Order: sequence, then C-alpha cells, then structure tokens
Amino acid sequence: MAEQLWDMDKINYVGNSSLTSGAEFHYYNPDEVVAGKKMRDWLRFSVAYWHTFDQRLVDPFGDGTAIRPYDKYTDPMDNALAKVDYAFEFYDKLGNDFLCFHDRDLAPEGDTLRETNANLDKVVDRIVDYQKTTGMKVLWNTSNMFTNPRFVAGAGTSPYADIFAYSAAQLKHSLEVGKRVGSENYVFWGGREGYESLWNTDMKLEQEHAAKLFHMAKDYANEIGFDAQMLLEPKPKEPTTHQYDFDAATTIAFMKEYDLDKDFKLNLEGNHANLAGHTYQHEIRVAREAGLLGSLDANQGDKLIGWDIDEYPSNLYETTAAMYEVLENGGIGPRGGLNFDSKPRRSSFEPNDLFYGHIVGMDSFAAGLRVAAKMEEDGVLKNIVADRYSSYKSGIGADIESGKAGFKELEAYSLDKTQAELRAATSSDHLEQIKDTINHYIVNTLGK
Amino acid sequence: MAEQLWDMDKINYVGNSSLTSGAEFHYYNPDEVVAGKKMRDWLRFSVAYWHTFDQRLVDPFGDGTAIRPYDKYTDPMDNALAKVDYAFEFYDKLGNDFLCFHDRDLAPEGDTLRETNANLDKVVDRIVDYQKTTGMKVLWNTSNMFTNPRFVAGAGTSPYADIFAYSAAQLKHSLEVGKRVGSENYVFWGGREGYESLWNTDMKLEQEHAAKLFHMAKDYANEIGFDAQMLLEPKPKEPTTHQYDFDAATTIAFMKEYDLDKDFKLNLEGNHANLAGHTYQHEIRVAREAGLLGSLDANQGDKLIGWDIDEYPSNLYETTAAMYEVLENGGIGPRGGLNFDSKPRRSSFEPNDLFYGHIVGMDSFAAGLRVAAKMEEDGVLKNIVADRYSSYKSGIGADIESGKAGFKELEAYSLDKTQAELRAATSSDHLEQIKDTINHYIVNTLGK
Amino acid sequence: MAEQLWDMDKINYVGNSSLTSGAEFHYYNPDEVVAGKKMRDWLRFSVAYWHTFDQRLVDPFGDGTAIRPYDKYTDPMDNALAKVDYAFEFYDKLGNDFLCFHDRDLAPEGDTLRETNANLDKVVDRIVDYQKTTGMKVLWNTSNMFTNPRFVAGAGTSPYADIFAYSAAQLKHSLEVGKRVGSENYVFWGGREGYESLWNTDMKLEQEHAAKLFHMAKDYANEIGFDAQMLLEPKPKEPTTHQYDFDAATTIAFMKEYDLDKDFKLNLEGNHANLAGHTYQHEIRVAREAGLLGSLDANQGDKLIGWDIDEYPSNLYETTAAMYEVLENGGIGPRGGLNFDSKPRRSSFEPNDLFYGHIVGMDSFAAGLRVAAKMEEDGVLKNIVADRYSSYKSGIGADIESGKAGFKELEAYSLDKTQAELRAATSSDHLEQIKDTINHYIVNTLGK
Amino acid sequence: MAEQLWDMDKINYVGNSSLTSGAEFHYYNPDEVVAGKKMRDWLRFSVAYWHTFDQRLVDPFGDGTAIRPYDKYTDPMDNALAKVDYAFEFYDKLGNDFLCFHDRDLAPEGDTLRETNANLDKVVDRIVDYQKTTGMKVLWNTSNMFTNPRFVAGAGTSPYADIFAYSAAQLKHSLEVGKRVGSENYVFWGGREGYESLWNTDMKLEQEHAAKLFHMAKDYANEIGFDAQMLLEPKPKEPTTHQYDFDAATTIAFMKEYDLDKDFKLNLEGNHANLAGHTYQHEIRVAREAGLLGSLDANQGDKLIGWDIDEYPSNLYETTAAMYEVLENGGIGPRGGLNFDSKPRRSSFEPNDLFYGHIVGMDSFAAGLRVAAKMEEDGVLKNIVADRYSSYKSGIGADIESGKAGFKELEAYSLDKTQAELRAATSSDHLEQIKDTINHYIVNTLGK
Ligand SMILES: [Co+2]
Ligand SMILES: [Co+2]
Ligand SMILES: [Co+2]
Ligand SMILES: [Co+2]
Ligand SMILES: [Co+2]
Ligand SMILES: [Co+2]
Ligand SMILES: [Co+2]
Ligand SMILES: [Co+2]
Repeated sequence: MAEQLWDMDKINYVGNSSLTSGAEFHYYNPDEVVAGKKMRDWLRFSVAYWHTFDQRLVDPFGDGTAIRPYDKYTDPMDNALAKVDYAFEFYDKLGNDFLCFHDRDLAPEGDTLRETNANLDKVVDRIVDYQKTTGMKVLWNTSNMFTNPRFVAGAGTSPYADIFAYSAAQLKHSLEVGKRVGSENYVFWGGREGYESLWNTDMKLEQEHAAKLFHMAKDYANEIGFDAQMLLEPKPKEPTTHQYDFDAATTIAFMKEYDLDKDFKLNLEGNHANLAGHTYQHEIRVAREAGLLGSLDANQGDKLIGWDIDEYPSNLYETTAAMYEVLENGGIGPRGGLNFDSKPRRSSFEPNDLFYGHIVGMDSFAAGLRVAAKMEEDGVLKNIVADRYSSYKSGIGADIESGKAGFKELEAYSLDKTQAELRAATSSDHLEQIKDTINHYIVNTLGK
Repeated sequence: MAEQLWDMDKINYVGNSSLTSGAEFHYYNPDEVVAGKKMRDWLRFSVAYWHTFDQRLVDPFGDGTAIRPYDKYTDPMDNALAKVDYAFEFYDKLGNDFLCFHDRDLAPEGDTLRETNANLDKVVDRIVDYQKTTGMKVLWNTSNMFTNPRFVAGAGTSPYADIFAYSAAQLKHSLEVGKRVGSENYVFWGGREGYESLWNTDMKLEQEHAAKLFHMAKDYANEIGFDAQMLLEPKPKEPTTHQYDFDAATTIAFMKEYDLDKDFKLNLEGNHANLAGHTYQHEIRVAREAGLLGSLDANQGDKLIGWDIDEYPSNLYETTAAMYEVLENGGIGPRGGLNFDSKPRRSSFEPNDLFYGHIVGMDSFAAGLRVAAKMEEDGVLKNIVADRYSSYKSGIGADIESGKAGFKELEAYSLDKTQAELRAATSSDHLEQIKDTINHYIVNTLGK
Repeated sequence: MAEQLWDMDKINYVGNSSLTSGAEFHYYNPDEVVAGKKMRDWLRFSVAYWHTFDQRLVDPFGDGTAIRPYDKYTDPMDNALAKVDYAFEFYDKLGNDFLCFHDRDLAPEGDTLRETNANLDKVVDRIVDYQKTTGMKVLWNTSNMFTNPRFVAGAGTSPYADIFAYSAAQLKHSLEVGKRVGSENYVFWGGREGYESLWNTDMKLEQEHAAKLFHMAKDYANEIGFDAQMLLEPKPKEPTTHQYDFDAATTIAFMKEYDLDKDFKLNLEGNHANLAGHTYQHEIRVAREAGLLGSLDANQGDKLIGWDIDEYPSNLYETTAAMYEVLENGGIGPRGGLNFDSKPRRSSFEPNDLFYGHIVGMDSFAAGLRVAAKMEEDGVLKNIVADRYSSYKSGIGADIESGKAGFKELEAYSLDKTQAELRAATSSDHLEQIKDTINHYIVNTLGK
Repeated sequence: MAEQLWDMDKINYVGNSSLTSGAEFHYYNPDEVVAGKKMRDWLRFSVAYWHTFDQRLVDPFGDGTAIRPYDKYTDPMDNALAKVDYAFEFYDKLGNDFLCFHDRDLAPEGDTLRETNANLDKVVDRIVDYQKTTGMKVLWNTSNMFTNPRFVAGAGTSPYADIFAYSAAQLKHSLEVGKRVGSENYVFWGGREGYESLWNTDMKLEQEHAAKLFHMAKDYANEIGFDAQMLLEPKPKEPTTHQYDFDAATTIAFMKEYDLDKDFKLNLEGNHANLAGHTYQHEIRVAREAGLLGSLDANQGDKLIGWDIDEYPSNLYETTAAMYEVLENGGIGPRGGLNFDSKPRRSSFEPNDLFYGHIVGMDSFAAGLRVAAKMEEDGVLKNIVADRYSSYKSGIGADIESGKAGFKELEAYSLDKTQAELRAATSSDHLEQIKDTINHYIVNTLGK
C-alpha cells in the first residue's frame, strides 16, 4: 500500500475544532477511555462491504451513479480481487477495527455453486492474508440468499425444495468462510423470508423451514468448530410485503416457538426499526431486556419515507438513545459491534463520500456515547426512573412484588380509597423537562 | 317490552332483494347452514355495549353528536338502568346472540370502589334478569382501566403501586361479574399498558407487573370457578406512544416469556391490525397458526388514517379473508365470536344509525362467510397452496422434512446444479389471477 | 404475425362464466354500450411499454426474474426491434386500442444524443409501420429523464445547466416522435424533479426551471404542429425525498403559479395517490372539479406499503370509485384513457403473466364502469347529494348563494336561534348505509 | 397580582448554566440582539389560550388529567373570568409578548349566539383591561367552529345553510373581538372543513362556500377597520378524513382558485406538516417562496404517530431548520410570530408543567435562532447553494435563464456531448457532510 489507492489521508481525531465537516473526527477518539472502556471497545465499528464497495447507488428509477476507483477492473474476478486491496486501505485510513460481508459481496457467482464457491475462496484467501498483516477482524459474515432470481420466493422459506437445498448448501460454505476469517458473529437477514400474499402462502410451513435451516446452521457451525454468535436481523417489509422477522418482538416470538432463543440473538438496524413503526431505542430496549441484544446495524431512516434508505447515522438524539441502551447493557453484547449498514445518498457519488459518510456515522455514534456516558455518570435518568417506581420498594408495593398481596388483600387495601386519594398516588412525569435536559446534555457534553 | 323503545322493527333476512341498504339483512340468515354449521354459530355476533350504548361520538376536536332515546334519563343510575332495557330490546330487534361490556360501560363510578361496585351490581342484576328471559349470552366482559385519570400511566403497568393495587381490586370484581353473567371469555385490552417515553420507563418491570396481574386474574377466576377463556387484545399505539401488546406476534412473545400461553389466547381487531402495519388476515393467521386464536373484534380501519376509527366492517375483501381464516381454523375458537367493536361515524348520529351500522357489519361478515365457504368448498386456494409446496412431498423435499438430508447431503445435491436448473425449480405464482379469482368468488357467490 | 410470438390466444369476452380467472374477459366487452358509449370508448385502455415489455421485475434487493420470449435477442438494437413485433402481437391478442411509451423504453442509448435519437428513430419507424396496418393509437408518449446518472439531481430542475440543456434537447426529439406516432397526449412525470434535502436546494429556482421547460415544450409542440394534450403526473416521493408534483392539488398550485393551467392537465395514478395519503378517487375528484382531469394511470398500491408497487388494479371499490368520477366528468377527459402503469409482482415472472395482469386490470375497470354506470343510472348517490345540500336552494341558503345575505343579515338570522334549533338544521348522513349500498351495487351488477 | 396565582417565580435567562431543565431559560434572552434584531422580535412568542388554560389533557380513551389552580371556580363564567387573571400572571412570569385565542376558549356558550356573545364580551373586557396595564398583544384570534355538534359536517362548508349562516354570524363577532383586542392576525383553521366520504360530498360547492365565507370575513374586517393579516392554517386530516387545507401547497392552490392569495397568507404548524408527509421546514419553505408565509404554530409531532399530538417543540434540528427559513425570509412575516399550539403530555398534569413545556419550547426555538443565525452569518449553506447552481450564471446556463437558448439551440449544444461529458457536468453534493456540519453548528453554537 505504498501507492495510494484512495485519494484520502488517514482520518485522525482532531477534537471539536471546526464547524464544517472534514476528513477528520471531532468526537471519535478510539483510545480515549469513556465510561471505563476505550471508545473503540464500546463501539467496535465495522464497515459493510456491500454498501461501501459494491453499492452502485442504483434505485428503482435509476442506474447507479457511483464512481469507484476500481471501476477500471472490468473482469469480474479481477475487480473482486482488486476491491480487497481497496477495502483494506480504506479500513486503514478510516480506522475501523472490523468488517462485515455477505458471501456474494466478495466474488461473482459462477454457473454452479461449485464454481461460485471457488470464486469466493480466492477472494477469501486474500482477505485472510490481509487479516494477518493488519489485525482486521470480521464482526460478522452472512449469506446473500435474496438477490439471485432463484430466491424469488425465499431461500429457507422457499416453497421449492431445491431452493431450500441450495440455500443450505450455500450457507454451509458461508459458515466455513466465517470460520476461516474468524467472524465473531454470523447474521441472518431474511431478505425474502416472508410473503407477497397470504392467499398462496403456508406461513406455518415456511416458518418451520426457516427454523429448520437455522438449527442446521447452528449444528454445522458447532460441528466445524465455528463458534460465532448467531444473529437474526428483523425487518418488517421490503422487499416482501411481510417479512417473518418483522421486528425484535416478533423475532423473539419465533425464536421461542422454535427453540432458537438459546443459540441466537438479534442484530438490530435503525432504519428497520422505523419501518416497523418503532424507534431504534425501542428495538434495542426490547432486545436487551430479553437478554437477546446481539449486535447493531448502525444507520438511520427518514420517518416520512416508507422504504429502507440506510442512511449514515447523523441524528444525535438517536445515537444518544442507542448508546444509552448499550451502556445500560454493559456493551452491545458479548461480541456485538456497530456495523454501518449505510450507504451514501445517490447524489453523493464520489469515492470520498464513502469516507465522509463513515465519518459522520462514526462521529455521531461517538458523540452519542459521550452524551450517554455523561447522563449515566450523573445518574440523571436513572434517578428519575428509580423515583418513579419507588412505591414498589415498600408497603403495598413490596407486598405486590413479593406475592404477599393477592386479589383479596389488594381489594381490601383499595376498596375505600377515594378518587382523590388515588389521583394523589400518581405523579406528573414532567416529560417536557426530560426532553429539555437531553438537549442540554447533548450540547453541553459536545459543544465547546 | 310491549312498548317500543327504539323506532325500529325487527331486522329480518330478506335475501339479496334490493340494491339500497335498509332495515334488513341481505346475507345474514342466522339459521341457514353454511359449511356445515348455522351462520349464527360460525359468526356468534356480539354487540359492544360501549360503542353502541355509551359512545357519544366525541372526537378530540368536538363534543358528542349522538342522539340517544335514553338521553332523557338525567340521573346517572337511572340512565344506566334504563340503558339495559334499551340494550335488550336492541339485541332482540337486531338478532345478535351475544353482548360484550366493560365494567364501566354499565354504571357510573362512585367515589370509592365499594360505591362503584355497588352501582355496577345493580345494573348487572338487571342484565342477569334479562338473560333469564331472553337467553342472551355474554361473549366477553372486561374491565375499563384506562379512562379514569388514576390510570394516567397505566393500570397493571402503572409505576404507582396503589394503582396496581386498585387495578387488581377492580379486576377481582369484574371477574365476579363475569361469572354471574356467564361470560364465555374475559378480555384484557391494555389501554394504557405501554409507554409515553422510554426515557422514564422501566419497561421490563412494567411487563413483569402486567404478567403478574394476568396470573393473579387467572388464579382468581379458577378460585371462583369462572372458567372463561382469557384473552389479550393487541393494539400497537394510541392512546400511548407504544402499547406492550403491539400486535399478535409481540403479544405471543410476551405470553411465552411470562408463561401465559397456556391460559391466554388472543382477541384480534381489524383496525388495530392496520395500525400495526398488518392486514387483519395477517393477525388472524398468526394467531391461528400459533393455536392462539381466541375471538375477533369486528371492525375496520382506514389505512390512510393513523388512528383507531373502529368503523363497522363493510369491506368484503377483508371480511372474506377473515372468514377464510376462521374456516381454516374450524371456527373462531372454541369460545370466540365476532364482537362489533365498532361505532357510527360522528356524522351518523341518529339512534337508528346504530342498527344500520350493525346491519352493514353483520351482512358484510355473513357475506364473507358465504364467499369463503364457497372457496373452501371448491378448494380453489387449498389446491394452489398444495401444489405450490408439493416439492416437499417427495425426493429431496421429503428428505428435508424428515431430517434425512443435512447440510452435507444438500450440498452434494446442489453443488453442480446450474443457474438454469435452479430457476426451473421455481414457478410463477400468477398472483394476478388469484386476485381476479377472488373478485369472481365475491360477486358470483353474492350477486344475483 | 402468422407464427405466434406469444403462447396465448386472443382474449375474448365470455361473460361472467367461470369463477376462476383465465385467458378471457368476464366484464370487458369492448363494443357493448354502457351509459351511452361503447366500453372501449369509456375506457380507452393502453398498455405501458415499460412495465410490459422492458420491466425485468428487479427490486432493490434482487435481480430481475422476468422471462420474456425476446430475451434470445442479445444485441440491444435487435432486441429493441424484435420487441416491437412482440408488442403489436400482444396488443392484438389483448385487444387494447392504445399504447404508451417513454423514449428510452424503445431503444438503447448511444454515447451521444445524436446516436440515441438515431436508435430511437429506427424503432419508431417500425411502430409507425405497425400503426398503419393495425390502427393502434398512442395514448401518450413521454421522455425518460430520470434513469441515466446524468439526471442524478433532476432534469429540468437539475442544478447543472448542461443537464437542463440536454433535457430540452431530449425532449425536443421526444415531441417530434410524438407527432410522428400521433400521440393524443404527452406526459411529464418528474422522476427526479424534487429534492433530496432542502439544505442544499434552491426550490424556487428549480421550479422556475421546470416551468420554463414545460413552456418551451408546449411552444415547440405548437411550432411543429403536435397538438397533443400536455399532462403532468403527480407523485409525492420516490425516488426523491420530495417530488415537486406531490399530488393533484400541489401540481395545480404550480400550474397556476407558472401560468401552465391553460395548456396542461393532469395524468393521475392510483398508487401515487395512496403514497400522498389520498384515495385515487380523491385525486380524480380534485382534478375534475378543477377542469384539469387529463388521463389516468391505472394501477393500485398497497396502503400498508410505503413505496410504489404499480400493481395491476383489482380492487373493485377503487375501480368503481374511479369510474364514477369519470362518468361524472363525461369521460376521462377529451383525450384521456386508462394506461396500465402496472407490472406483475416479481413472483409472476412468466410471459403470460403479462396477459393475466392486464386481464384482471381491464376486467376490474370494466366492472367498475358497469357498477358506476348502474349507480349513475339509478341516481342513488346523486339523490343523496342533492338532498344533502338542498337547503341552499331556497330561503337563507339561496340568499347566501346569491350574495344577498351578508354578515349582518346572517347575524340577524342566527342571533337568537337556540342550540336545539341549530342541531335540528343538521342531519345524519347515514354513511354506514351508503357503504352497504355500494356493496350491493357491486355484487348485484356483476354477479349472476 | 400581589398574591401569587401560580406557584412559580418569573422565568429568567440564566445562560447555559446547568444540565438539568429548570424554571429558567438557557437560550432565550429576549433583549439580546441576534442577527440584527432582538430575540423577542425574531420570535414573537405567543401562548395559546386553549392548550394552556382550557386543555384538560383528555384523549379519546381517557378523561382529563389536568390539575389547574382555577379548578376551584365551578361556575362557568366565574371560571372564565378567573382564568384571565391566571393567564396574565402566567404571561408575566413566562415573559411572552403575545397571546392567541379562539372565541370559545374564553367564555362558555349560551343557548343562543346572543347569549354566547354576551358571555364572551365580558371576558374580552377583562382582557382589554389587562392589555392596557401590561402591554400584552394578541398575535391572533380565531373562531372555534368545530367543537359544537352543530358543526358536525363543517361550518363554512356545512351542507346545511343554517350552519353557514350561524358560522358567518359567529365569525362577525369574532372579528369585532379581534378589533377590540388589536389582533395582528386573524386565523382560520378549518377544523371540520373537509369530508368524511367523497360519496356524499359536493366538494366543489363546499370549497366555493368556504371561499365565500373568507371573502365575506375580509370584507367585513375592512368595513370595521380591523386590519389584521388573514391566515389559513393547513392540516391534512383529523378530525375529518380529508381537510381541504391539506398542506401549504394545497391551500395555495385553493387561494389562487378563489382569488384569496392577495388578502390571505398561511399559518403553519409543525405537527400538521408531519401528518401531511412533510417536514416543517418544507411547509415553511413552500410558503415563503410563494410570498405567503404569515405566522407559525410552534409545536412538534412524532413521525411514528398518526395523529396530532401538539407537543412542545424540543427537537433542535427542527427548530434550527424552521428559524433558518425565517431568517431567509427576513422574519416570520410582517406580522407573524411563534404561537405555541402545544400542550403537555397527558402525564404532565401539574400546573407548572405548563411553564416547563413553554420553557423547553421557547428555549428550543431560541436555540434554533442562535444556530441558524450563526449558519447565516458564516454563509455556510448559502455558499453551498450558490456554488451548486452557479452554472446558470454564465454560458449556456445564462442563455437558458435569459430565454436566449430555446429547444433548437439547446439541441445543437447537446447533440454530440458524450455520456462522460454529461456526467462530468454534475457534482456530488456531499450531503453526508452537510448533515455533519449542522451537528457541529448546533453543539458548538449552544454548548459551552
Ligand atoms: Co436497511
Ligand atoms: Co441491516
Ligand atoms: Co379499535
Ligand atoms: Co377492540
Ligand atoms: Co404512472
Ligand atoms: Co407508480
Ligand atoms: Co395549529
Ligand atoms: Co395540531
């Protein structure tokens, strides 16, 4: 890498030094200790291969606008191998510690899976070589089982047994790749595991098949000694009308039904949360309270837009909320990280927009970590919550918690209380002040 | 009931006799046998006390417009007792077999629960009397724990122990009322069991409290020999920002987490399904495939409107889909029915609009039953589904189902299949024709 | 066309003869007179070149699934010319009288506009030849100024003058093509005429440029004697965050601001209506009451889905409502028609799904015409409306209409009216009965 | 006001001194000059009578939770008069310079309009007295023509002539009140001026009636010498299914159609913008570029919630964007201001939550002003925009602007440009960096 592949210098932390965005970090200082841990260890930033190196910035109404320095490599395998060089220089300059990829991000398909696997293995060889010299780690890998037309009606949930069979075969090799690159997690996003119409769908059978495939994957991973944490990634719809892993709660129901909740956790994405009608914080909270927070796909949606835009995260309210949940959880999860499942807008088509996008994303999450850590340190919200539920700590509340008070005791306790007494048992929650306080924490923690 | 309380004659089935809607049924013929059962036994129609007799047709921007014949009773208890007379004449004229009510629909609150219970008991006495002479059954009763300001932050999930205590006490009496009137089900709609903001909410604790209350309710019902089927009714939001029983799948996750899935099932509402981003058919499918379909709240939403309008169902696509799921389930559930959780639009404010609304609702569901039964009889969709998944019946598909084929076998099977071979394993699902076929079934089953 | 290009016979009207959908019309009988005009003249069905012959059924997460008989032509110009043969046999078999196309649907781009125009002209030559022998008419043509990356930030509204210049040049030739094929209308859908972010957008300047381009187009059309009706097609968003022609009303405001409302009318699409938060009926009503209903893009959306799915119309409520507005308007517009801006679902990938999709679309609109005509004939809704507003026909209402009654007269008239008197001046609108009546009209007009 | 009516001291500016929200301003310093004008003159804060003093915090599922110090006044007129005292002490303590009210906010209705007007006049007398001693100004007044059941189907658009007549009479007096209190603006929010269903609605006639009423109001205002700026306030839906003043653009189309755009401008609300699918910034931009920005209703919605929550504004991204548009406009409008059409959450039910809500609202808009002013001062966005459109300043762009280049010239200019040349005429807009820069401006302008 003596010669520069990207026209960009290494991105350094300069502190809160200028108002305009540039090729530098204002908030992300990887080795600075915040809340008892290095920022890099809280955040474990990962660059997504697909949106960074493969994404052409197409949309349903337009061809790709992306200009990429490796576009000069016209042979698909040449291009695939060259991209690895570009990727590792990109990581080096950006300063992320992790990468993520789908199998099909790395190499082109052949006419058969055997040929496809051969193509893939060549690229993985090069990745493994780079890992040795750079120490780069793989946060997770996954298998693309939605792009090829054969997956028109799903992969594991396909009505066609040959497609299920193929999916299993593809997955098998993807797990073997995961083992080779030392992935800390393995993710399943069910791109087409859902339905277009209920009228022609045997939903129960499809879900049984999905569960079967997950169990087979876990068993095979165990068999080959690939001990990655397995993760399901919810999304409510798009491309399908309904995806089975609609949101965190739906996916948890599925995991419990099919006995997957011991071996699988959740990988949660901000834009997917919004498409399901939730905040990102909500999805993370649901997962962490269920003990199932696995990893995070860091991006943001536009709540006025009804499809997945996978925008680089920049909203400090959302990054603060997400990192607050992470701090409460003691970390993203034993092996989780923040993978930027994010892409530039189609109008940001130059090579360096890939850096700028990651800079705003990383800085926004680093900022969120700083703000959330300050709020944690001050206990400002913890105290509000503790106070709000304090009536369960003694008296009738404690009796409820302990099970001492049943229906009859509670009736006796309540039967002659007046309306006024009961109203007096409630308190205003002053929610407007909480919002104001969060504003102050954001600007005062970060501003200068 | 010699004297007419409502200016309406008994609603009779006249068949498909006129184009304009009138005081008659075109499709609902209660004793006609459809798909092996009387229509009344498939549909088990219930009139909701709140929307029919109490609803003043207020909205957030306007006072109630409803004109009701019992408005002349100005004393609250007189009014409450008179309403029972009106209700039972209404049922008699409409021809529904069931009613549903919240405790607070029936009688006004006093200053204490003791006084409130006394008010309620007087009205229940009258209902029980009417039941003896009319044979009217209660599909379900429930407890209103969301209207009074004391429930500002929830009932079972309130941060305030005194409110939990009161809720338990209120619920105890409501279960006793259920036993007296012989309710076949008991419903919990968690009106305020959710959060306004995550920042000040201990979601896990609140959900534990909710589960505790449900367990206490079930235990007490057992204790007093009230063997109603217990039901949770999902709704995603409104009035709260997020309700814990967001949709069927979320509620199932909750039930599994807190060991409630043996004793509780689901009561599903059409408008709530839409607010959660789902079709009604989806919610019913989710519940029936989980073995948790309990009962149905029959109404419809406007998918372009973001709040609960509880409109009388009139969309034949939706009633057909709902009844198709019911037929596949062999019935709504062992004890379920179709409760019209529906109200007139605010602009339909005359007394008889309550009849007209129920007529369109009952006729639309009766029509849906007829259409769905015809589709079932012809096997038109069943055959499509059977054919679509037939590859799992033999060969590699059967090996997948039996567990005979694992990753290695499936890899061997797939490794050299070409792209073209795999494409050929999939089929067009001709979804456009399915939609056309459904149109034909609707117009030809019902038209003349 | 001695040899069959499509494996399909001519689609004939067979009446309401079977329950399952097939290669036949149940409701569309082109020469049958309904409401005083042949069905073909009310409906003026057009097949859209792009979704029928070019659409590969890609989506943002998958490659195209479409199987098309002309896929064997691998040279782009060969393919383009062959497609014309396929298209005209398709029209012949389907029985539509009109076609629609974008310039770029027909032929591939060259490296320069000169080359692109030459490609296009060759294909247009063949279309013109076919028109002579078949009598096929072009409902409208248009220019694709959104797919090529050069249009990344718009065409007429591009911030880059060279792109505006190119757009004008492309449009010039497209108008010349329109003249050659005798297009009855010329449509502008502003694919990227909107913004991604307001922060870097001079919205006013962009809208001035758009208006300038429209005026230039109209002037040039006049200059060359191309007297097509000019149409703008609203869509609220997608691909851009906000499209300037958001909906009918917004586009009317724009047309009035820039003096375009004399020469331009509206082309309205069902799915776009839904994305803007409206029913299709609403958009058509807005346009017709403004005297600006130009033509219709017949398709439907899924109101639970936040992007454009361009589904073949099948919902009889929506087609009935649309055709009711058309009947009230005396026709779609002087030169409008129903263009199927519709595509098969990605899972309906066989060639004949293109026929099946059009069959459900054409039959659903033919059905809507029949139902709406019956409602018009019976005056059922007209009478309701006339009655509802009758108070403006005499007395104080007539004085209001004539301007005789001003604020002072109306104050004198109202000052001592009691609450009860005023309530009595209003009536219930019995909306539930209207919905029931519409159900009866649909099933009884169409059913047998 | 010797004795304290509210248990609150005067709210003072203390600067950015603490992290938790309290009874003090951190950003709003009324007499500090920002961007050449005092903050109070940029912001012209107004307290809304309805949400502050009348709002009981009811919702469709619950009774009001509000606790207000004047609840002890049980006679309606006593209560109404006492509230004026409370209101003026509230203004004094909060430090707002303006108030807004509906006629019906101030005093109860009588059985006739004559009695209602008499009630109202008594309260207005007291307001006028207070104005003399305090200098408080009325930003705008308006007429509530949606709450009373007589307005069930609208006021100016009611199908019932007597209701139109009554509306005119009510409006007449409301204008007279406006003159008495010196309102700078007069607002029309068409609470029920829309439709529930198109099937029974003569939309055109209703809109003509609305326009007639607006013209009569303007004429009468002129007649009595009440020279307030007249404003229409858009909202897309709720309570009606569709409101005619859907959004800014729709309302502008209506104003142009009915010749109201000379005398009327727009009052824009943040939550209403969101319900229409827009950002608040979008609505303000539309209005200002049309020269029709009149005034602002300051509040915020929750984009994941489908109804109007009228939350106190706290989102600094939104207040910054709104104030940026205001700065670009040179002020909110000649007579506009920021009226807090905002209410506490139902769970913030104590009297002082009314202060806290206004504090977060005022501070958030003051913060937005500071940030936007800094961005304006630095020209950071202006420069981006100027650069982006610079190609129209010379060469072919200038010829386009001047009209020198028509279709033929532009064709000649473009015909031989290559794909690569055209791509090179476009630029990446680096939108990710713009978002990052805005973050820096927010935290660095406000933080310490
Ligand atoms: Co995504
Ligand atoms: Co993701
Ligand atoms: Co509901
Ligand atoms: Co319900
Ligand atoms: Co279209
Ligand atoms: Co479309
Ligand atoms: Co407002
Ligand atoms: Co509002």
